[in-house]
Amino acid sequence: MDNMIIKQHISRQFNNEMEQIRNKVLAMGGLVEEQVELATKAFMSSDAESAEKVIEQDQLINALEKDIDHECTEIMAKRQPAAFDLRMLIATLKIITDLERIGDEATRIAKMAMRLEGGEFYQDKYFEIEHLLDMVKEMLNGALDSYARTDTEELVAITAQDSKVDREYGSITRQLITQMMEDPRNITRALDVLWTARALERIGDHACNVCEHVIYMVKGKDVRHLSHEELTRTVNETSKIGR
Amino acid sequence: MDNMIIKQHISRQFNNEMEQIRNKVLAMGGLVEEQVELATKAFMSSDAESAEKVIEQDQLINALEKDIDHECTEIMAKRQPAAFDLRMLIATLKIITDLERIGDEATRIAKMAMRLEGGEFYQDKYFEIEHLLDMVKEMLNGALDSYARTDTEELVAITAQDSKVDREYGSITRQLITQMMEDPRNITRALDVLWTARALERIGDHACNVCEHVIYMVKGKDVRHLSHEELTRTVNETSKIGR
Repeated sequence: MDNMIIKQHISRQFNNEMEQIRNKVLAMGGLVEEQVELATKAFMSSDAESAEKVIEQDQLINALEKDIDHECTEIMAKRQPAAFDLRMLIATLKIITDLERIGDEATRIAKMAMRLEGGEFYQDKYFEIEHLLDMVKEMLNGALDSYARTDTEELVAITAQDSKVDREYGSITRQLITQMMEDPRNITRALDVLWTARALERIGDHACNVCEHVIYMVKGKDVRHLSHEELTRTVNETSKIGR
Repeated sequence: MDNMIIKQHISRQFNNEMEQIRNKVLAMGGLVEEQVELATKAFMSSDAESAEKVIEQDQLINALEKDIDHECTEIMAKRQPAAFDLRMLIATLKIITDLERIGDEATRIAKMAMRLEGGEFYQDKYFEIEHLLDMVKEMLNGALDSYARTDTEELVAITAQDSKVDREYGSITRQLITQMMEDPRNITRALDVLWTARALERIGDHACNVCEHVIYMVKGKDVRHLSHEELTRTVNETSKIGR
């Protein structure tokens, strides 16, 4: 009987630890979402103060990454988890890497916002940048939401959105190149818009990676580098395993 | 006695498995190095055939990533390793992610090589691109070498090289912008040179990440997001642990 109580106790403690990791990942995700939005809006409104805040806050994201990483490896060493628990820890290690990289992209955008000069030139492109921001925000939010609910239902739709992001990015690039050719005085500024669009496009890629890690966590299948059709089939065919 | 023989057998098998993973990582690393060189040279010599080869070979890298990833998680689930072995597996999971991303950057360069038009325009920049290539190749090679030897001696010097890469990239960018302004007809081509330089700069970042993972593996210290001085101190102060 004593033995059973100890077992229950350990199992409760383990669940608490896993829950704590999940909560920290979601906190980190929330912060990263905030950073992406704040940086892009700072860029669009030439707001150096917000840009500076983004650059400062990046340290919080880095610290969270190291903290969560440490907790995951500690649990692996101490508890030797299997099945879903092991997959959740491995997926988490990978998800926080992608989140940290998204944070880096936000910082890159913020740095461009800091050195704005003649911010009026390309305001006609900000509509497209904002559209791109909305798309990647939605992807990131959906990915984190699926992680929280350990659910893959939305993930196929989110990863499908990535090709829309790529198309939008391609269209922004072509328009900017035309405008640069028409008036070469604006090249520096246009390049900043181009880098920002590219950073957002990369953020979309990282959000897709998060989706793939969640699919691995829930379904036990590695769907990286599959075509979208293959990914869809894998998600739909496999039922949840090893909980 | 029988028991001891079984234990020895299991331990030998485990060592073989770890050795196999290490060899596969080094094979993947070798392929990635080859891809970076081939892609950049294809870009500089307008060699569409080599560029196509890079794009094709990227699948091999992706397959190796999935394969090694699968083997690492299998060993974690089956053998429940601790100390150095666990750190090696976790470091490996992260290293192959960086190697795969380096492969993606090589593919990006190759795609730009494929659509070369008027390849003569910016040949005067190729000298700098080649210099950048040499620097990041050296970093990547040193990082993989340290992984192979589970040794951190060279890693401080390699990560120090990254700021040289950043400076070189900054200098290429400024020169290209000036040239774009002088002759806007070359903007498209100049942008390709710029993206290539940026891809190489990113490859340098990934090589630094690999160094940090090797330091974690050998020294058990997470040195990410430290200043170069702090990293140097950590590497020098900590002796090898937990072998």
